Amino acid sequence: MSLIVQKFGGTSVGSIERIRSVAARAIAAQQQGHQVVVTVSAMAGETNRLVALVEGIIERYNKREYDVVVAAGEQVSIGLLAIAIEAMGARARSYLGWQVRFLTDSVYSKARIQEIEGFRIRDDLEKGYIVVIAGFQGVDEKGDITTLGRGGSDTSAVALAAALEADRCDIYTDVDGVYTSDPRIVSSARRLARISYDEMLEMASLGAKVLQTRSVELAKKYKVPLRVLSSLEEGEGTLLTEEDELMEKVVVSAITHNRDEAKITILGVPDRPGVAATIFSALADATINVDMIIQNISESGETDVTFTVPRGDYQHALEVLAIPVKQIGAKEVVGNRTIAKVSAVGVGMRSHTGVAQRMFNALAADGINIQMISTSEIKISVILDEKYMELAVRTLHDAFELDKDAGDRVIAK
Amino acid sequence: MSLIVQKFGGTSVGSIERIRSVAARAIAAQQQGHQVVVTVSAMAGETNRLVALVEGIIERYNKREYDVVVAAGEQVSIGLLAIAIEAMGARARSYLGWQVRFLTDSVYSKARIQEIEGFRIRDDLEKGYIVVIAGFQGVDEKGDITTLGRGGSDTSAVALAAALEADRCDIYTDVDGVYTSDPRIVSSARRLARISYDEMLEMASLGAKVLQTRSVELAKKYKVPLRVLSSLEEGEGTLLTEEDELMEKVVVSAITHNRDEAKITILGVPDRPGVAATIFSALADATINVDMIIQNISESGETDVTFTVPRGDYQHALEVLAIPVKQIGAKEVVGNRTIAKVSAVGVGMRSHTGVAQRMFNALAADGINIQMISTSEIKISVILDEKYMELAVRTLHDAFELDKDAGDRVIAK
Repeated sequence: MSLIVQKFGGTSVGSIERIRSVAARAIAAQQQGHQVVVTVSAMAGETNRLVALVEGIIERYNKREYDVVVAAGEQVSIGLLAIAIEAMGARARSYLGWQVRFLTDSVYSKARIQEIEGFRIRDDLEKGYIVVIAGFQGVDEKGDITTLGRGGSDTSAVALAAALEADRCDIYTDVDGVYTSDPRIVSSARRLARISYDEMLEMASLGAKVLQTRSVELAKKYKVPLRVLSSLEEGEGTLLTEEDELMEKVVVSAITHNRDEAKITILGVPDRPGVAATIFSALADATINVDMIIQNISESGETDVTFTVPRGDYQHALEVLAIPVKQIGAKEVVGNRTIAKVSAVGVGMRSHTGVAQRMFNALAADGINIQMISTSEIKISVILDEKYMELAVRTLHDAFELDKDAGDRVIAK
Repeated sequence: MSLIVQKFGGTSVGSIERIRSVAARAIAAQQQGHQVVVTVSAMAGETNRLVALVEGIIERYNKREYDVVVAAGEQVSIGLLAIAIEAMGARARSYLGWQVRFLTDSVYSKARIQEIEGFRIRDDLEKGYIVVIAGFQGVDEKGDITTLGRGGSDTSAVALAAALEADRCDIYTDVDGVYTSDPRIVSSARRLARISYDEMLEMASLGAKVLQTRSVELAKKYKVPLRVLSSLEEGEGTLLTEEDELMEKVVVSAITHNRDEAKITILGVPDRPGVAATIFSALADATINVDMIIQNISESGETDVTFTVPRGDYQHALEVLAIPVKQIGAKEVVGNRTIAKVSAVGVGMRSHTGVAQRMFNALAADGINIQMISTSEIKISVILDEKYMELAVRTLHDAFELDKDAGDRVIAK
């Protein structure tokens, strides 16, 4: 008998009617012969309501107590779902994070799961119960309630699937899978039937917001087959899995974009050891994440350093840099908020050459100037003027023939 | 250093503003040198909202899961209160029922507390924390969440005070104490500075709705000094305590009333053993509580049996009685829904005679007919026509001089 973990987000349990349809899906899976564990988020809007209550008291709140308040949202939805399942004639039992012991560290409001005790769940599954688990929350060694950060229910579901050695983890969401590109930009974008964990990780960190990154990392680590599918319509969704030969034949799987970045250049930086450390330590101390960094080789004893930061941190970064820039004796700081990042992702890049060339040629043919380039084993990212972003995404989607079935692509052969 | 348990109901934590004023009260008590534990209910309206969600799914719900849903209300209020206390500069930690282990039986939705583990609370108090505890909830031996029934937060507070051997338990509510009679009926009613547990128990079961009966029973059992006072205005409230000599000098402490009763008389009941058992077993099987029972001595071999039931169960009781009345061969069943019960309560009755006489004379002087009489060691109750209820309460309040200070009463000397 196979074991399936299903996860439903806040929209999917946002009303009594929707909770009933989640119950129906869980019961259907059980009737198909599976053991079923369901993880749910708080009802849509509930977490926001609770956060607003907390922030109504004080802006810089005690995080231990914040976790106590917001964890209550999932407590309501698991109880209601269990009641709905029982009302429809099946048997159900709900559990909170501390009851089936999602043991986490003590970093309140963004805790990490360390261990899950599965025995109580397994017992109930053996007895024929559908087990309903609160996502997003755990308990630390002291017995304090912790939460996993926004989107944490995805991570709960995957961690649970790993702990129970589930045959599959199905993440129900409001999109019907992972696409070759954003369908709102590229009308010919196609749903991917399968994608590797590594590709999904690159896509998640590049701005595709389907799954919490941590949940994909966990799925990769424990080899959990992870399916993303729609809770609103029928369909196969997209299966995240380990890469195989078929995937490696596909050079580029998807084109992603992200306009949440800004570029900063420090001009006339003296070329001596410790200079980069001074600059980036200052940003790290201010908890500003730096993404791409470029430094040109210098002949004159001076160089320019360019890097990108989240757009919301742009102004803060400029303020933070004032002192170190003076210290190191650099000339000037300039920046640009109207940039975007466009990336090609695919595990096939590992064994194929000419991907960068094809990408740069396609952009050049459309007159799009590339401001920065960064690469990993399975992705190439370029920074360009924000106004060209949609055009670049469409151009690259065409250039790598992503509108075609993988087998029909010239480049993949 | 003394230890105080404070309890605040839903109205007292019904908004951020009110939560702030509860926080201020707790901090003030700590600054006066006390160790402070605060027990709170869910924010006003929240429990009703959660119950409505459950009942929106199905009327006869799974009670284990019902408890999971409704216990979430207190989780929100303890976190918010702890945040408010910290925001005002003191230190606070909140705990749910399972965390400081309010161990209960497994009777979901009306569980009884069996034991409380106090060590975590004591540790925090020693360290200078104000400890905030969720009322209304506990955990059973299996680790399932349980709730104590409506009004259960009073019981949580008293049980906690008993377990921690607190010096006092202060129940903050929307009235400023226990009165000699309902001030809406008797304008000269006085707040009682002190009252014995036994008197309060009689008063609670006679219709005074200040405290959950179970909480007074616990306070009596563990000798917890219990104070009822207003969360809206300053005042000393009423202290519930063991009876002492001073109390015993007061013959009557309070006059209570209850219009939630109806009277049923079975006429022409054959006077033979087992007849009463047949009648009252039928009512017990239908979970109808019978209050007063009167049966006259019979000379003729026939008797009349009269008793009272809650007014809401009157029709049901008549239906339930149809068969047993036939079985025993009684003549007829008659009833009356427009009755009321008025009672005089006082521990001094134990050692004073003439109380009943004074009571009956006072009522007779105003032409009020007594339909039934029932007595205990510390109370005398009469059933009368509902329309005389207010008059009877005022007459008795005067007759026992409850508008006067206890020392000035003629009858008390």
